[in-house]
Amino acid sequence: MVGVNGLLWHGRLESHLVIEEVEVAPPQKNEIRLKILFTALCHTDVYFWEAKGQTPLFPRIFGHEAGGVVESVGEGVTDLQPGDHVLPVFTGECKECPHCKSEESNMSDLLRINTDRGVMINDEKSRFSVNGKPIYHFLGTSTFSEYTVVHVGCVAKINSAAPLEKVCVLSCGISTGLGATINVAKPKKGQSIAVFGLGAVGLGAVTGARIAGASRIIGVDMNPSRLEEARKFGCTEFVNPKDHKKPVQQVIAEMTNGGVDRSVECTGSVQAMISAFECVHDGWGVAVLVGVPNKDDEFKTHPINFLTERTLKGTFFGNFKPRSDIPNVVEKYMKNELDLQLEKFITHSVPFSEINKAFDYMLKGEGLRCIIRMEG
Amino acid sequence: MVGVNGLLWHGRLESHLVIEEVEVAPPQKNEIRLKILFTALCHTDVYFWEAKGQTPLFPRIFGHEAGGVVESVGEGVTDLQPGDHVLPVFTGECKECPHCKSEESNMSDLLRINTDRGVMINDEKSRFSVNGKPIYHFLGTSTFSEYTVVHVGCVAKINSAAPLEKVCVLSCGISTGLGATINVAKPKKGQSIAVFGLGAVGLGAVTGARIAGASRIIGVDMNPSRLEEARKFGCTEFVNPKDHKKPVQQVIAEMTNGGVDRSVECTGSVQAMISAFECVHDGWGVAVLVGVPNKDDEFKTHPINFLTERTLKGTFFGNFKPRSDIPNVVEKYMKNELDLQLEKFITHSVPFSEINKAFDYMLKGEGLRCIIRMEG
Ligand SMILES: NC(=O)c1ccc[n+]([C@@H]2O[C@H](COP(=O)([O-])OP(=O)(O)OC[C@H]3O[C@@H](n4cnc5c(N)ncnc54)[C@H](O)[C@@H]3O)[C@@H](O)[C@H]2O)c1
Ligand SMILES: NC(=O)c1ccc[n+]([C@@H]2O[C@H](COP(=O)([O-])OP(=O)(O)OC[C@H]3O[C@@H](n4cnc5c(N)ncnc54)[C@H](O)[C@@H]3O)[C@@H](O)[C@H]2O)c1
Ligand SMILES: [Zn+2]
Ligand SMILES: [Zn+2]
Ligand SMILES: [Zn+2]
Ligand SMILES: [Zn+2]
Repeated sequence: MVGVNGLLWHGRLESHLVIEEVEVAPPQKNEIRLKILFTALCHTDVYFWEAKGQTPLFPRIFGHEAGGVVESVGEGVTDLQPGDHVLPVFTGECKECPHCKSEESNMSDLLRINTDRGVMINDEKSRFSVNGKPIYHFLGTSTFSEYTVVHVGCVAKINSAAPLEKVCVLSCGISTGLGATINVAKPKKGQSIAVFGLGAVGLGAVTGARIAGASRIIGVDMNPSRLEEARKFGCTEFVNPKDHKKPVQQVIAEMTNGGVDRSVECTGSVQAMISAFECVHDGWGVAVLVGVPNKDDEFKTHPINFLTERTLKGTFFGNFKPRSDIPNVVEKYMKNELDLQLEKFITHSVPFSEINKAFDYMLKGEGLRCIIRMEG
Repeated sequence: MVGVNGLLWHGRLESHLVIEEVEVAPPQKNEIRLKILFTALCHTDVYFWEAKGQTPLFPRIFGHEAGGVVESVGEGVTDLQPGDHVLPVFTGECKECPHCKSEESNMSDLLRINTDRGVMINDEKSRFSVNGKPIYHFLGTSTFSEYTVVHVGCVAKINSAAPLEKVCVLSCGISTGLGATINVAKPKKGQSIAVFGLGAVGLGAVTGARIAGASRIIGVDMNPSRLEEARKFGCTEFVNPKDHKKPVQQVIAEMTNGGVDRSVECTGSVQAMISAFECVHDGWGVAVLVGVPNKDDEFKTHPINFLTERTLKGTFFGNFKPRSDIPNVVEKYMKNELDLQLEKFITHSVPFSEINKAFDYMLKGEGLRCIIRMEG
């Protein structure tokens, strides 16, 4: 498949990404080729583009939050066929390894997130090329392209009646935040929760807290515009760490008679991770890390904060198994059984040709998700 | 009550502790005066005696693992009477605060462990004195004395048919380790577990793992004699970190195809705490900290170790509520419903006059628990 437009990142010194024609090879064994219809920008794309403390790999096509349609399937693919609507997911589900068989984990041995791999598992080669030169994949998804090739275990087949232009955001950020709260932090009805970082992931976590019936939902962000926005998602209180001389964990402990019952960190800042842990109540508090740290970050705390019976966990993709769980999330959303209010997360929409605007919005902290329409 | 023998610690520069006659005042409101019959030495006493990185408070009477008989009760004490057999516990249960009412926590707001407090809660004064000069309490128990005064919430009333010379060790170390495994780490039948530190606390954790039906119980200690001993408690494999060039977490991960399902740290070494966390399997591994850290210790790890779905917790007294749970533990032990094998933990026994030997045994890592017989 030639003449396909893809957004190429040519290396870390480059300030913007360029759309070029790429060739997309046919899917091989256990792979499918997808036509991407809608994609969105998640902060994880931005980190790897900025290549701060990460291993840069280029030329590369970013993008991992998207919705599309199966164009063709490779050998051995039986549960998907051309025309199926799917959400690609950055961490896959092989259904056969101990992780996929465990009720507790979504970290498939074969298909778990791998930020360093730029090739397909099957033959360790890329399916993208420009003039015969390989272009690397990102997170096994590379959705900033009109067509992409992904492993069959990295897509969720969803109801074709679902509005792809909305549910595409369930392919990463919102599901991650939602799951971090409902699958991992598991607040009980009436408990308090703090959410650090009020981007799409954090507001997904806030949404989960609202659905779980949390009594107090304290949003923490350094961007005052995000604090205002958060009220619409169910935040009941706000803390801007910049407004206080005391460490934010202390501010929260004072607001809540010793600490919140649950916290979810969705910033990627190691300082916020530490605060999110230290602000939970002793005896029963549970904190969950979601933000992607830098390579040389260090989580530091006094061990007594654990001894006093706090729990710290972390998660990728909110512990959802993409193939087993995400179709149900979409289904429940459509039946109004899950009040996700996806529209609220989608603050911008641009054609593919203007994708660099989406990067600008995120870098400036403007809006939440910008949908990129591949067909204009 | 005058002419009572107590073991006094006169300050940190002193190398040994001295038995002196002390006066023990009557119990006040919600207090009881206990005749201690048997006490044992736990590493926590040794830490505070060594005063390494802790706040020293002296003159003080140490001791917190013991069994005794109620001698008299103060005003308002209705559920205990003279003659009752009890185990004093360093972390109490008021039965009224949110912690005591929570199923998850044993960190009573009123009576939780407080290593800095040397006085009774009622009037902020000590019940011990020598020539009118106050002698401080330790952990609300101070069991290295023929008589001591404790808050009624800090004792478990047990079956008077229970052999006090054995069950006294349930008053701290063994219950702590046992509970850390069965109440907090909660291994499932057939899972693997690593236990760091094979003193009485660690072997209590091993005992819990055996009772829970763990398939592999990997003991980790730097003292080779402890490794041998551990086999008798149910350890199936041993690792001495000194035998390896690689970090012990890596050794364990290689032995277990990626990590153990559970780990319990019972050393007090922050390096062991980090290893205990990093050696659990991604996806579902749970690590539990039990050892008492130094004041300026720092737990450090890369946040990605949480993101990859590991859980870290900590506990005091194995999350047992002393008044609600410990009487049942004693009952089950007597009915052979809990195979605790307490005799194996008791490797030495000395009269009170030779209590300094117990300190020597622990400092040299010889044996596990030394019972100190108050009546000779
Ligand atoms: N674990 C996963 O599976 C997973 C999945 C998706 C995204 N992520 C990560 O989640 C994080 C959030 O993603 P997003 O798309 O919502 O990003 P975003 O940029 O839209 O939102 C992040 C928010 O955090 C705030 N913030 C930054 N530092 C802070 C601090 N120290 N204290 C308080 N607030 C702070 C920012 O102001 C911003 O509003 C990123 O690190 C991303 O890489 C993780
Ligand atoms: N959390 C609680 O409620 C609680 C209760 C009782 C005791 N404790 C603490 O538990 C710990 C154990 O107490 P104990 O009475 O069994 O002590 P102990 O001295 O009998 O046993 C500790 C063992 O740990 C080993 N060890 C030390 N550093 C190690 C390392 N880096 N790696 C591997 N092994 C190492 C020692 O060789 C020793 O065998 C102490 O820190 C004590 O203060 C905590
Ligand atoms: Zn993402
Ligand atoms: Zn798998
Ligand atoms: Zn102890
Ligand atoms: Zn209480």
